[in-house]
Parts: sequence; C-alpha cells; structure tokens
Amino acid sequence: MSDDRYERGWARLKELAGEDGERVIEGLRDVAPDLARFVVEFGYGDIYSRPGLDLRQRQIAAIASLTALGGCEPQLDYHIRIALNVGLTPAEIVETIVHCAPFVGFARTLNAARSAKRAFAARGIAV
Amino acid sequence: MSDDRYERGWARLKELAGEDGERVIEGLRDVAPDLARFVVEFGYGDIYSRPGLDLRQRQIAAIASLTALGGCEPQLDYHIRIALNVGLTPAEIVETIVHCAPFVGFARTLNAARSAKRAFAARGIAV
Amino acid sequence: MSDDRYERGWARLKELAGEDGERVIEGLRDVAPDLARFVVEFGYGDIYSRPGLDLRQRQIAAIASLTALGGCEPQLDYHIRIALNVGLTPAEIVETIVHCAPFVGFARTLNAARSAKRAFAARGIAV
Amino acid sequence: MSDDRYERGWARLKELAGEDGERVIEGLRDVAPDLARFVVEFGYGDIYSRPGLDLRQRQIAAIASLTALGGCEPQLDYHIRIALNVGLTPAEIVETIVHCAPFVGFARTLNAARSAKRAFAARGIAV
Amino acid sequence: MSDDRYERGWARLKELAGEDGERVIEGLRDVAPDLARFVVEFGYGDIYSRPGLDLRQRQIAAIASLTALGGCEPQLDYHIRIALNVGLTPAEIVETIVHCAPFVGFARTLNAARSAKRAFAARGIAV
Amino acid sequence: MSDDRYERGWARLKELAGEDGERVIEGLRDVAPDLARFVVEFGYGDIYSRPGLDLRQRQIAAIASLTALGGCEPQLDYHIRIALNVGLTPAEIVETIVHCAPFVGFARTLNAARSAKRAFAARGIAV
Repeated sequence: MSDDRYERGWARLKELAGEDGERVIEGLRDVAPDLARFVVEFGYGDIYSRPGLDLRQRQIAAIASLTALGGCEPQLDYHIRIALNVGLTPAEIVETIVHCAPFVGFARTLNAARSAKRAFAARGIAV
Repeated sequence: MSDDRYERGWARLKELAGEDGERVIEGLRDVAPDLARFVVEFGYGDIYSRPGLDLRQRQIAAIASLTALGGCEPQLDYHIRIALNVGLTPAEIVETIVHCAPFVGFARTLNAARSAKRAFAARGIAV
Repeated sequence: MSDDRYERGWARLKELAGEDGERVIEGLRDVAPDLARFVVEFGYGDIYSRPGLDLRQRQIAAIASLTALGGCEPQLDYHIRIALNVGLTPAEIVETIVHCAPFVGFARTLNAARSAKRAFAARGIAV
Repeated sequence: MSDDRYERGWARLKELAGEDGERVIEGLRDVAPDLARFVVEFGYGDIYSRPGLDLRQRQIAAIASLTALGGCEPQLDYHIRIALNVGLTPAEIVETIVHCAPFVGFARTLNAARSAKRAFAARGIAV
Repeated sequence: MSDDRYERGWARLKELAGEDGERVIEGLRDVAPDLARFVVEFGYGDIYSRPGLDLRQRQIAAIASLTALGGCEPQLDYHIRIALNVGLTPAEIVETIVHCAPFVGFARTLNAARSAKRAFAARGIAV
Repeated sequence: MSDDRYERGWARLKELAGEDGERVIEGLRDVAPDLARFVVEFGYGDIYSRPGLDLRQRQIAAIASLTALGGCEPQLDYHIRIALNVGLTPAEIVETIVHCAPFVGFARTLNAARSAKRAFAARGIAV
C-alpha cells in the first residue's frame, strides 16, 4: 500500500540527502503536497530503492541527465550534494560533467560546473 | 600536435565502437569532414581517453545525457551499443534509462527504452 | 499496496486508450517491464486517477507539454488519440496546438500539427 | 491593418494581465520595440483573441508548455498570475503542474511548482 | 490589414522557398489552416520581411536555432534548402552547423549535419 | 601539439572577449581546469579560429543557438558582449533575437532580449 512506498521513500531520501532532502520536500509540500508525496514515493520509494545500479552509478546518471536538461540548477546542486553523500569524489563528479561536454555542449556543461562549484563550496571542499 | 589526438581518438573509437564507429564517422566525413575530425579528436581523443571514470561509468553518463536531450535517437542507439561493448549488461543499461524517468519524465524515457530495444535486437539479445 | 495502484492504473489506461494503450505498455514491457509498470502505476494509477482537472483539461495539458518538449512524436500521436477518446473535438485539439505557437515557436508547433493530422487520419476524421 | 491587431491585442493583454502585462511589454519595448509589438499583435491580438478554447483552457496549455520548456520562470510566473485572473483556482493551477510530472519529469515540474508558489504569494494566496 | 501581411508573406515565402514552401503550407493548411496563415503572416510577412539583417544572415540564425532546438529535422532540412536559395554556399551552411558544436554538443550537431547532407543531395550538390 | 591549440585559442579568446573572457575561464578553472582548457582549445583554438564564416556571422549563430537552448543566460550575455566587440551593432543583435521568435517562440526570445538589455547596459549603450 502507498504508506509502505512513502515510508521506504522517506527513509531513502533521508539516507541520501539528510536535512537537505527534508527541506526540499518541505518547501514543495506547502504549495503542492501531493507532488511532494509523489517525489518521495516514486522518486525515492520506487526508483532510488531499486537494485541494478549502485548509488554512485545512479548519481552519475542523475548529474548527466540534469546537466543535459538545463535550467534545473536547484536540482543539479542538490543531486551533486547527494553524489558527495554516497561517495562519489569531487573529481568523479567533475569528470561526469566534463564527460557530458561533447554530448550537450559547453553552455550546459559550464552551468553544471558552476553547480558543482557551489555544492563543493557549501561543503567546504577546496577545489 | 593534432595528429596525436586524432590517432589516439581513432584508436579509442575503434576500441569502443568498432566498425559501427567507423561508419558513423564515414557518414559524417563526406558532408562535414572537419566535424568528423572534431568528434574523433575531442570526443574520443580528449574526453574518452581521460582517466577519472571508467568506461562503464562514462556510458551511464552518455545514455543519461542523451535520454534527457531527446531527439537524439541515432546517438542513443549507438551509445547503447557501445555500452554493451564496454561491459554494461542489458539490465544495467535499462536501469540507467529507468533511473532517468523521475528526472526527465516518461516521454523521453520511453523513447530511450525503444533505443535500448533496437540496440539489443541488433545484437540478438533477448529481453 | 502496489497492486491497487496497478489495477486502478490499468483500468484507467484501458478506459482512456483501449487496445492502443495496451499495445504501448506491451511494447515497453519486453525491454523494461518495471518501467511499463511505473507508467501504469504512476502515470495512470496516480496522476490520471486524480480529481481536480477533468480528462479534457488533462489532455490539453498533455498535448501542450509534449508539443513543447519536442522529439516525442509517438507520445504526442498517442495522447492526441486519447484526447479524441475523452471528448476533445479535433478543433479543440488543433486549437491547443495553435495556442502553443507563441510559447514554443512554429518549429515544434508544426511538428505537433503533423501529429494531429496523423491521429485524425488514423480515426478517419476529415480535416 | 496592423493597428487593429495591436489595439485588439493591447486590450486583450490588459484584460488578461492588467498592469502586470503592461510592465512586461514596457520592459521589452526599450530594447526590442518590434518584438514587444509582435508579442501584443501575434500573442494577444491573434492567438489570445481566438475562439475555440476558453481562457482557462488556454492558461492550462500555457502553463503546461512553459513547464515543459524549462528555463522560462519569468514567463511561467506571469502566466500563472494570468491563470488566476481568468478564474483558474490555485488548486487547478497546481493540478496542471502535477499533471505534467509524468510527461516532463520532476525537475521541471518542481521548478514550475516554485513559480506557482511565488505567484500565489504575490497575491497573498495562502497555500 | 491582415491581407497585406498575408500577401507580403506569401510573396516572401515563394521568393525564399518556391514550390517547396507552398508544399509546407499546403500540408499544414488541411489540418490547421489558421496556423498555416500565421506562419505566412508572422513568419514571412512580419519577420522575413524586416530589414536589419540580410537573408543570408537570417538563414545562419535559422539554422543555428533549429540545430539547437533538436527534433526539428523537417524544419532544418527546409531552412537549409532556403539557405541555398538565398546564396549561402554549402560550405557556409556546414560551417554554421560546425560552429554550433561547442554550444549545443555533437549530438544535435551531427543531426544537423545529416539534414545538410539530405538537403544537398536533394539539390544534386556533391559534398 | 596541444599547446599550439591552447595558445591559439587563448589569443583568440582575448581578442574576442578580453578580460571578460579571462574571467570566465578563471572562474571555471578552479573547479574544472580541464574543462576550462577544452573551452579554450576546442571552442577558441579550433572553432573560433576557422575560416568559412566571419566573426559577425559566427556571433549570429552563437546568439541564435543560445537563444534556442534556453537556460543559458550567462553564456548568452557573454556572447552578446562578444558580438558587440566584433562589430555587430546593437540593432543587428536585437534583430538576430527577433528573427528567432518564430522558430523558438516568445518565451525563449524574451529571455534573450533581456540578455541583450543587460549586455547593452553593461556597455552604457542606450537602447
């Protein structure tokens, strides 16, 4: 039943993103509470709870897809912070963004590099 | 000098994509020979020759970025075939695409799943 | 529990899209069965089962978002057929696409008009 | 003649967006006066003056297309304010955005929800 | 009045694209006649009738914007044919596409190069 | 060898963008030094050093592709400043953006007009 997916998703979200993730969901809940619930249930309870790829691989895919989409800086900043949480090194995160350059061009890639810079700075990571 | 990058890129391209890659470059060379050269030099000689991520991680990023871009079916088919060549399993490739669903939506994700289906069928992989 | 969402979603899918919808899910199921399930559960069991907008309003939003995305012709064709099923007239469907022109430009809008043409032709609707 | 379309468009713009709309056009007029004129003539004099869909349906399409495009926050904020002006309820606006989630993914959908939050706050609408 | 813009636009369309342009408008007219009219009036009667840039500069902008959008192959093929008509050489057209590579990446750029290849072949231009 | 491309690219970058360009590269270098190098080598040493189009034509293509991509305001502001440096007039820059309107829609076009407004203001250009 839905509660299981929500519980599983919420636990996964907190494991991946901690208070950072709670804040994102809280900020969404007051304007679109069901959308907040779907993010938890589908995004974290379904997708991020699956086997088949480990969390570092999932964050490589997350960063690459958000870099390609463009215009999703808040989401990219957030998923780079999660990437650090699950053990991708800053160098691997930057390399993921660099790898996207021939696919999506420098414009979107440079914006993603700025996201990485912000996320690293927020963690006090010298680059 | 440029020749080194081209040689390195061409060797990398053939290692990753074999005759498949040669065909892509050949098809491009007659209309835009310098663009074909830049793909080899920058795409393969620079980017795909870098350390920092292994080839399976690079193909996860490639598939996720092309899934997110949309409208790049030839490139997505091709990079899924490379993904198989470098050792991602069909299940990992599909999982990469599934992971993109909450980020980019079902429309682009379903198109990517069709690419995977075509690429697997071309290799005689039952799914 | 998940089965409820799947059952509700499957019933909704069949109500909206009939055998057309079953074919889409079947075509996806052999390469990415869990993605097929998520489309049914989240897309139809969650989203298309919600109150708050009627089905004609939902198809206006579906057509507008797919027109704007671009490169999603199979999905656009399919959702235009659903739009006809739920009672949008061909004129309202075309008007939805025309309304998108100032927002997304003629390039994407003309592609959407072609989708409408295909969908109407498949139903024997003279335009 | 052009003046008719401009007059009709300007009246429509003011009816839909009031001073808010005048400000958008004014802000554009000093850098690109003809573009400002085209927005009034084509956007409002042609498109928003058409029959075939009512204004609430048109704003559903506007919000869905801008949500899907991404990176158009100023336009999305503005069209959500128009949506309120023409009688879509805050709940219907949020539902339009939620409906886009399976089509365009959570990244763009969450950005649209933030636009709604800003637009509602600007009107003193508690959510 | 509108007829002037339509007449001017239709003359401009025929000057730029000849029967090719008529076919595009005809193909659109049966499903969305007003959209066909807006393309003629706004696209050709307003925009393509403006001073400020010559037609070769306008086609550079057209090709670059359609390359960047992606998923607009019919429009890109068509505007490359117009580019040839207004005197851009095949080499300049290819160079415009190559110039887009660092901005939009190789995926969209290679698709545009294929459009050029098709357009040149349709004119019997050896490349 | 690579150094030649870097030297050529760096000289070209400074010729086109002066200290403005140096700042962009510096800002990127501390988080992704190799990406900064690729921008210089590929973007400026390869692409912007090519014959076949003059610099004003290249900036028309740059502005049109960035307008179409959307969500690339920093890059668009920067390339509009370069466009002024290479001799495009403010009127030609605005006309390039206006020309994109029928291709990419008013939403992205208005964002580009704001970029032009910012770039002109930074140069003290009255519009």
